[in-house]
Amino acid sequence: MYYDPVETMDRNKLEKLQLVRLKETIANAKATPFYAEQLADISPEDLTSIKDISRLPFTTKDDLRSQYPYGMLTRSLDDFVRLHASSGTTGTPTAVFYTQKDLDTWADLMARCMFACGCRKSDVLQNMSGYGLFTGGLGIHYGSERLGMLTVPAGAGNTKRQIKLIRDFNVSVLHIIPSFALYFAQKVQEEGFDVRDMPWQIALIGAEPHTEEARRKIEKMMHIKAYNSYGLSEMNGPGVAFECTYQNGMHVWEDSYIVEIINPKTGKHVEEGEIGELVMTTLTREGMPIIRYRTRDLTRFVPGQCQCGRTHRRIDRIAGRADDMMILKGVNIYPMQIEQCLMSMPEVGQNYLIELVTEGVTDQLKVKVEIKDEYFVEDMRVLQGLQKRIAKNLCNEILLTPRVELCQHDSIPKNEGKAVRVMDSRKK
Amino acid sequence: MYYDPVETMDRNKLEKLQLVRLKETIANAKATPFYAEQLADISPEDLTSIKDISRLPFTTKDDLRSQYPYGMLTRSLDDFVRLHASSGTTGTPTAVFYTQKDLDTWADLMARCMFACGCRKSDVLQNMSGYGLFTGGLGIHYGSERLGMLTVPAGAGNTKRQIKLIRDFNVSVLHIIPSFALYFAQKVQEEGFDVRDMPWQIALIGAEPHTEEARRKIEKMMHIKAYNSYGLSEMNGPGVAFECTYQNGMHVWEDSYIVEIINPKTGKHVEEGEIGELVMTTLTREGMPIIRYRTRDLTRFVPGQCQCGRTHRRIDRIAGRADDMMILKGVNIYPMQIEQCLMSMPEVGQNYLIELVTEGVTDQLKVKVEIKDEYFVEDMRVLQGLQKRIAKNLCNEILLTPRVELCQHDSIPKNEGKAVRVMDSRKK
Repeated sequence: MYYDPVETMDRNKLEKLQLVRLKETIANAKATPFYAEQLADISPEDLTSIKDISRLPFTTKDDLRSQYPYGMLTRSLDDFVRLHASSGTTGTPTAVFYTQKDLDTWADLMARCMFACGCRKSDVLQNMSGYGLFTGGLGIHYGSERLGMLTVPAGAGNTKRQIKLIRDFNVSVLHIIPSFALYFAQKVQEEGFDVRDMPWQIALIGAEPHTEEARRKIEKMMHIKAYNSYGLSEMNGPGVAFECTYQNGMHVWEDSYIVEIINPKTGKHVEEGEIGELVMTTLTREGMPIIRYRTRDLTRFVPGQCQCGRTHRRIDRIAGRADDMMILKGVNIYPMQIEQCLMSMPEVGQNYLIELVTEGVTDQLKVKVEIKDEYFVEDMRVLQGLQKRIAKNLCNEILLTPRVELCQHDSIPKNEGKAVRVMDSRKK
Repeated sequence: MYYDPVETMDRNKLEKLQLVRLKETIANAKATPFYAEQLADISPEDLTSIKDISRLPFTTKDDLRSQYPYGMLTRSLDDFVRLHASSGTTGTPTAVFYTQKDLDTWADLMARCMFACGCRKSDVLQNMSGYGLFTGGLGIHYGSERLGMLTVPAGAGNTKRQIKLIRDFNVSVLHIIPSFALYFAQKVQEEGFDVRDMPWQIALIGAEPHTEEARRKIEKMMHIKAYNSYGLSEMNGPGVAFECTYQNGMHVWEDSYIVEIINPKTGKHVEEGEIGELVMTTLTREGMPIIRYRTRDLTRFVPGQCQCGRTHRRIDRIAGRADDMMILKGVNIYPMQIEQCLMSMPEVGQNYLIELVTEGVTDQLKVKVEIKDEYFVEDMRVLQGLQKRIAKNLCNEILLTPRVELCQHDSIPKNEGKAVRVMDSRKK
C-alpha cells in the first residue's frame, strides 16, 4: 500500500522526472535576485542528465542569511501565505516562505511519510510538539489532516493532560520529540498507568538526531513502534525523508528533492555508502526554490533496495552535524558517537552530559553518565569497574579516553523540550 | 467590498436560507445519539418559519459533557480530521470535532471576518496567540491563510522576538489577546521603539471579553485600529461574529448560525435590544451540529442597519458571562461593569483586581486599582480624594460601595497570557 504511485516509480523514469523538474526549478529560481546572479551562466538546457547537477553552485545557510528576508523569493510577497523563521532575537535569522501550493505539496509529502510507516485515515494522531515558528508542529499537523487522521493539536508540555487526551480519544499515533519520549514514558508509569494498556501504536520521532539504541529504548519503554523522520525548514520542514515499516533507513522523496552526499571539505560526491554532508535541491517548490543546499547534516545512502518496494533511496539516521563536530586534541568527535556507545550499555540510564573543559593548559573531555538505580550499588569497586568499562568503550569509539563521572538517576537536569547534551566551556 | 456576496443578502432571502439549513441541520443532527433522543418528536417539516426554532430544546454545556466524547457526532470517527477539547485534567471536558469540510467552512468564515475589518491578501498577519487545543490559534491561522495573507505563526510569549518579526516582515495585522496588548505596547516602548513607527495597522482582539474603554486604550497605546471578535469552540471557535470597520457591534454570520437572545431564567426571547443570554444554532456544520446552544454569554442585538451594507445582525460586546455573575449582598454584579467604570477614569492604569472576602460574618467587595505614575503623588489627601471618587463611581454602576485600594503601577502581578481579574475567597 502506497500513498502515491510515484513512490514505486521505476528509477529511470524517476530520474527523467527529476531532470525535467530540475530544469523547471532552475528557470523558476532565476526569477529570484539571488539565483539570477548565481545561475547567470547556466541555462536549463545545459543539463542533459541529473548528474549535471554537480555543475551548479552550492547554496549555504550564510547565503540564506545574506538574502534575508526576501532575496530568495520567485514572486511577489502577495502570493505567499506562510513563513517560518529560525528563532533567535540577535543575529540574522533565516526565513522560509510558502505559497498555498507549497503548503499543499508539503502536506502531501508529510501525509506520504506517515502513510509509509503505517498511519491510516482511521488513526488518531496526537501532536505533542510545539506549534508556532517551529516547522515540526504545523508540518505534522497539516500532514495528519491531509491523510485524514483525527488530529489532536495538544502542543508541548502538560504531561497529565497529554495522558488524559491519549486515553480519552484512543490516540494511536504520537508525534513526540525523542528526548521527551523517555521522560514521558516514565511519567505515564508514575501516574499509575501501564504503557501496555495505552492505545498508542506508532510514534513519529524526529526533530532531534538520536541513535538506533535510543529508538529501541523508546520502543521498549513505551511499548510502541517508533519511526524516524528527517526534515529541515529550508526544505519545508518535516516530510523530507521517513522510515517505512522496515525501519531500515529513511526514504527521501526523490520526486520532490534531489539528494547528494558530499565530502564537506572537497565538495565532491563521496563513494556510495560513505558518510558525508547531505546536500538537497527542491524540485516542487514554486515560491522559494533552493538549489544544492548544504544541510550540514552528516549521513550516508543505505545501499540496496528496500523490501517495501519503494524505489526512492534511503538515507541513514543523521550521524551528527558538520557544525557539531568537536575537535579535541586533533581528534574529530561527534556527540552521536558518544550517545550511541553509552546507550548500548544496559547499566546506562536515559541521560548524559558531555563537557569540554580547560584544565591548566589542556582541554579535557568529561562525560557525566546517569546510571540506572539497580546498578547504582554501594560497593565502590563495582562502580569503579563500570566507570572504567564506560571509559574504555568510549575510547574504542572516539579514539581518546574521556573522564567518566557516574551519577544517579535524575541528577542531570532535563527539560520538557530538547535536551542539552553538550557543554563546551573551554577557554579559547 | 465583501468577502462573500451572502454578507449583503436581503434579509427575507437570508431567513429563507436559514430555514432550509435549519431543516437540514435537524435531519443531520438526528443521526447523533444525543439528538436522536432530544428531537425524537420533531421532524424538519414541522418548521414553517425560522421563528419555530423556539420549539426546539436547548443544548447546554452539561449536555456536551454528558455526551463526551462521541455522543454528538453525526458520522463515523474516520470522517473527522480535527478535535479541540477544553483544558483541564480533572472533571469531564468538552470536545469539538471537525470534518475536513467543517474546517473549510470555518476557515472561510474566519477569512470573511478578517476581510470585514479591512484585512486583505497583501497584508502580513502575526498570530501572537498560543496554538494547540485553544481554537483561537489554529482558527485565526487557517483563516489568515485562506484569505491569502502572509501568516507568521509566532505563537504566544517571547516579546523581543515578536517585535523583531513584526519589524522584519512589515507585519500589518496582529492577532493579540487584549490583556496582553497593553503589556506588549509598554514592552515595545521599553525596547526603545516608537509605536507610531511600527508597521502594524490592525489588531484582532478577541478571546477575552473587554470593554470599549479597554479597546480605545489599546488603540491609543499601540497606535492601531483594534477590532473585536467573538467565538467559542462549541461554534467552531473564532469566526462567529466580528466587527466591520465601523466598529459598532459584531456581525454574526447568519447564513451559518441562528442567533437568539433569551432571558436566562425564563428561556424566552428578550425584547429587541435588551441584554440576555446568547443562544446559537449551527447551520453549516456537518460533523457536529449543535442546536440552540446556551453560550452563557450575555449580550444584546445592536439595533438598526450597519452603515457597511452587511445585512447580518450585530451583537454588542459581551457584557459578562451568566456564570461570572457575582452575587453580593443580594446584588448581581458583573466584573465587566467594574472594568468599564475603572477604565473610564484617566488616573487608572492598566491593571486591577476584584476581591471578594469574608470579614467576620459579612462578605466584602474589595477593588485594588493601579494608578498611573503621574497621578501617584505624595499628597495623601489627593490620593484619598481619588480613592473616594473611584468608590463613588463604582457605587453608581454596581449599586454598592466597594473598599477601594490604590496601588502603584506594576504592583498587581500579570501574566503574558490571560489576566486574572477576580479572586473570590469568600467562606461558603
